[in-house]
Amino acid sequence: VRAEAPAQAAHINKTIKKEEAKVVDVCVATAQEQKQVPYCRCWKSSTFPLCDATHAQHNKETGDNVGPLLVKKE
Amino acid sequence: VRAEAPAQAAHINKTIKKEEAKVVDVCVATAQEQKQVPYCRCWKSSTFPLCDATHAQHNKETGDNVGPLLVKKE
Ligand code: FES
Ligand code: FES
Repeated sequence: VRAEAPAQAAHINKTIKKEEAKVVDVCVATAQEQKQVPYCRCWKSSTFPLCDATHAQHNKETGDNVGPLLVKKE
Repeated sequence: VRAEAPAQAAHINKTIKKEEAKVVDVCVATAQEQKQVPYCRCWKSSTFPLCDATHAQHNKETGDNVGPLLVKKE
Protein backbone atom coordinates (compact mmCIF):
# COMPACT_ATOMS: atom_id res chain seq x y z
CA VAL A 1 0.00 0.00 0.00
CA ARG A 2 1.43 3.36 -0.99
CA ALA A 3 1.40 6.12 1.56
CA GLU A 4 -0.88 8.97 0.57
CA ALA A 5 0.88 12.08 -0.66
CA PRO A 6 0.76 15.00 1.76
CA ALA A 7 -1.46 16.96 -0.59
CA GLN A 8 -2.32 19.74 1.84
CA ALA A 9 1.38 20.52 2.26
CA ALA A 10 1.60 21.09 -1.47
CA HIS A 11 -1.09 23.75 -1.44
CA ILE A 12 0.21 27.14 -2.52
CA ASN A 13 -2.91 28.78 -1.16
CA LYS A 14 -3.62 27.75 2.43
CA THR A 15 -6.18 30.36 3.48
CA ILE A 16 -7.74 32.45 0.71
CA LYS A 17 -11.30 31.70 -0.43
CA LYS A 18 -10.84 27.97 0.08
CA GLU A 19 -14.56 27.52 -0.55
CA GLU A 20 -13.99 28.43 -4.20
CA ALA A 21 -12.88 25.79 -6.71
CA LYS A 22 -10.49 28.27 -8.32
CA VAL A 23 -9.59 31.73 -7.15
CA VAL A 24 -9.45 34.14 -10.07
CA ASP A 25 -9.23 37.89 -9.62
CA VAL A 26 -9.68 40.70 -12.09
CA CYS A 27 -7.78 43.94 -12.13
CA VAL A 28 -8.77 46.85 -14.33
CA ALA A 29 -5.58 48.78 -14.84
CA THR A 30 -7.05 52.07 -15.98
CA ALA A 31 -9.26 52.16 -12.88
CA GLN A 32 -6.36 52.18 -10.47
CA GLU A 33 -5.41 55.47 -8.86
CA GLN A 34 -1.71 54.81 -8.61
CA LYS A 35 0.41 54.47 -11.71
CA GLN A 36 1.67 51.09 -10.47
CA VAL A 37 -0.02 48.57 -8.14
CA PRO A 38 1.56 45.35 -6.80
CA TYR A 39 -0.56 42.19 -6.94
CA CYS A 40 0.17 39.20 -4.70
CA ARG A 41 1.52 35.93 -6.10
CA CYS A 42 2.48 34.33 -2.76
CA TRP A 43 -1.10 33.79 -1.54
CA LYS A 44 -0.21 35.09 1.93
CA SER A 45 -1.18 38.75 1.70
CA SER A 46 -3.78 40.01 4.16
CA THR A 47 -4.98 42.35 1.40
CA PHE A 48 -5.16 39.70 -1.35
CA PRO A 49 -5.35 40.08 -4.34
CA LEU A 50 -3.11 43.05 -3.53
CA CYS A 51 0.43 42.53 -2.25
CA ASP A 52 1.11 43.71 1.31
CA ALA A 53 4.78 42.63 1.32
CA THR A 54 4.15 39.41 3.27
CA HIS A 55 6.10 37.65 0.50
CA ALA A 56 9.26 38.87 2.31
CA GLN A 57 8.35 36.82 5.38
CA HIS A 58 7.54 33.76 3.27
CA ASN A 59 10.85 34.07 1.42
CA LYS A 60 12.82 34.48 4.65
CA GLU A 61 11.14 31.52 6.35
CA THR A 62 11.40 29.11 3.44
CA GLY A 63 14.28 30.37 1.28
CA ASP A 64 11.83 30.90 -1.57
CA ASN A 65 12.08 33.86 -3.99
CA VAL A 66 8.55 34.90 -4.89
CA GLY A 67 7.33 38.44 -5.42
CA PRO A 68 4.41 40.42 -6.79
CA LEU A 69 3.23 41.32 -10.26
CA LEU A 70 3.41 45.07 -10.72
CA VAL A 71 0.49 46.25 -12.81
CA LYS A 72 1.11 49.56 -14.52
CA LYS A 73 -1.62 51.62 -16.09
CA GLU A 74 0.60 52.68 -18.96
CA VAL B 1 17.82 18.28 18.59
CA ARG B 2 14.88 19.49 16.51
CA ALA B 3 14.53 18.16 13.02
CA GLU B 4 15.07 20.81 10.40
CA ALA B 5 11.96 22.05 8.65
CA PRO B 6 11.60 20.82 5.06
CA ALA B 7 12.06 24.33 3.71
CA GLN B 8 12.38 23.36 0.07
CA ALA B 9 9.02 21.65 0.23
CA ALA B 10 7.46 24.93 1.32
CA HIS B 11 8.66 26.76 -1.76
CA ILE B 12 5.82 28.07 -3.89
CA ASN B 13 8.21 28.65 -6.76
CA LYS B 14 10.28 25.57 -7.54
CA THR B 15 11.69 26.45 -10.96
CA ILE B 16 11.36 30.08 -12.08
CA LYS B 17 14.41 32.36 -11.97
CA LYS B 18 15.73 30.72 -8.82
CA GLU B 19 18.97 32.71 -9.25
CA GLU B 20 17.03 35.87 -8.39
CA ALA B 21 16.46 36.86 -4.76
CA LYS B 22 12.89 37.92 -5.55
CA VAL B 23 10.99 37.46 -8.77
CA VAL B 24 9.02 40.59 -9.61
CA ASP B 25 7.38 41.11 -12.98
CA VAL B 26 5.88 44.20 -14.51
CA CYS B 27 2.86 44.30 -16.77
CA VAL B 28 1.87 47.41 -18.68
CA ALA B 29 -1.83 47.04 -19.23
CA THR B 30 -2.27 49.53 -22.03
CA ALA B 31 0.48 47.80 -24.02
CA GLN B 32 -1.35 44.49 -24.18
CA GLU B 33 -3.08 43.58 -27.41
CA GLN B 34 -5.91 41.63 -25.88
CA LYS B 35 -8.48 43.33 -23.73
CA GLN B 36 -7.80 40.81 -20.94
CA VAL B 37 -4.63 38.84 -20.19
CA PRO B 38 -4.25 36.14 -17.49
CA TYR B 39 -1.13 36.29 -15.31
CA CYS B 40 0.13 33.24 -13.45
CA ARG B 41 -0.06 33.00 -9.65
CA CYS B 42 0.76 29.28 -9.36
CA TRP B 43 4.41 29.59 -10.42
CA LYS B 44 4.09 26.56 -12.70
CA SER B 45 3.33 28.14 -16.06
CA SER B 46 5.73 27.44 -18.91
CA THR B 47 5.00 30.96 -20.14
CA PHE B 48 5.46 32.71 -16.78
CA PRO B 49 4.63 35.48 -15.94
CA LEU B 50 1.68 34.65 -18.19
CA CYS B 51 -0.79 31.90 -17.26
CA ASP B 52 -0.85 28.85 -19.54
CA ALA B 53 -3.54 27.00 -17.55
CA THR B 54 -1.08 24.71 -15.75
CA HIS B 55 -2.81 25.81 -12.53
CA ALA B 56 -5.51 23.26 -13.41
CA GLN B 57 -2.99 20.41 -13.17
CA HIS B 58 -1.61 21.76 -9.89
CA ASN B 59 -5.13 22.05 -8.44
CA LYS B 60 -6.05 18.55 -9.57
CA GLU B 61 -2.90 16.97 -8.18
CA THR B 62 -2.93 18.74 -4.83
CA GLY B 63 -6.55 19.73 -4.21
CA ASP B 64 -5.50 23.37 -4.20
CA ASN B 65 -7.65 26.16 -5.67
CA VAL B 66 -5.31 28.71 -7.23
CA GLY B 67 -5.91 30.64 -10.43
CA PRO B 68 -4.61 33.59 -12.41
CA LEU B 69 -4.97 37.34 -12.12
CA LEU B 70 -6.85 38.67 -15.12
CA VAL B 71 -5.43 42.05 -16.12
CA LYS B 72 -7.86 44.15 -18.11
CA LYS B 73 -6.81 47.20 -20.04
CA GLU B 74 -9.97 49.05 -19.18
S1 FES C 1 2.30 39.69 -0.26
FE1 FES C 1 2.15 38.09 -1.70
S2 FES C 1 3.49 38.69 -3.30
FE2 FES C 1 3.61 40.29 -1.89
S1 FES D 1 -0.65 28.62 -15.07
FE1 FES D 1 -0.25 29.51 -13.15
S2 FES D 1 -2.13 30.48 -12.64
FE2 FES D 1 -2.48 29.64 -14.54
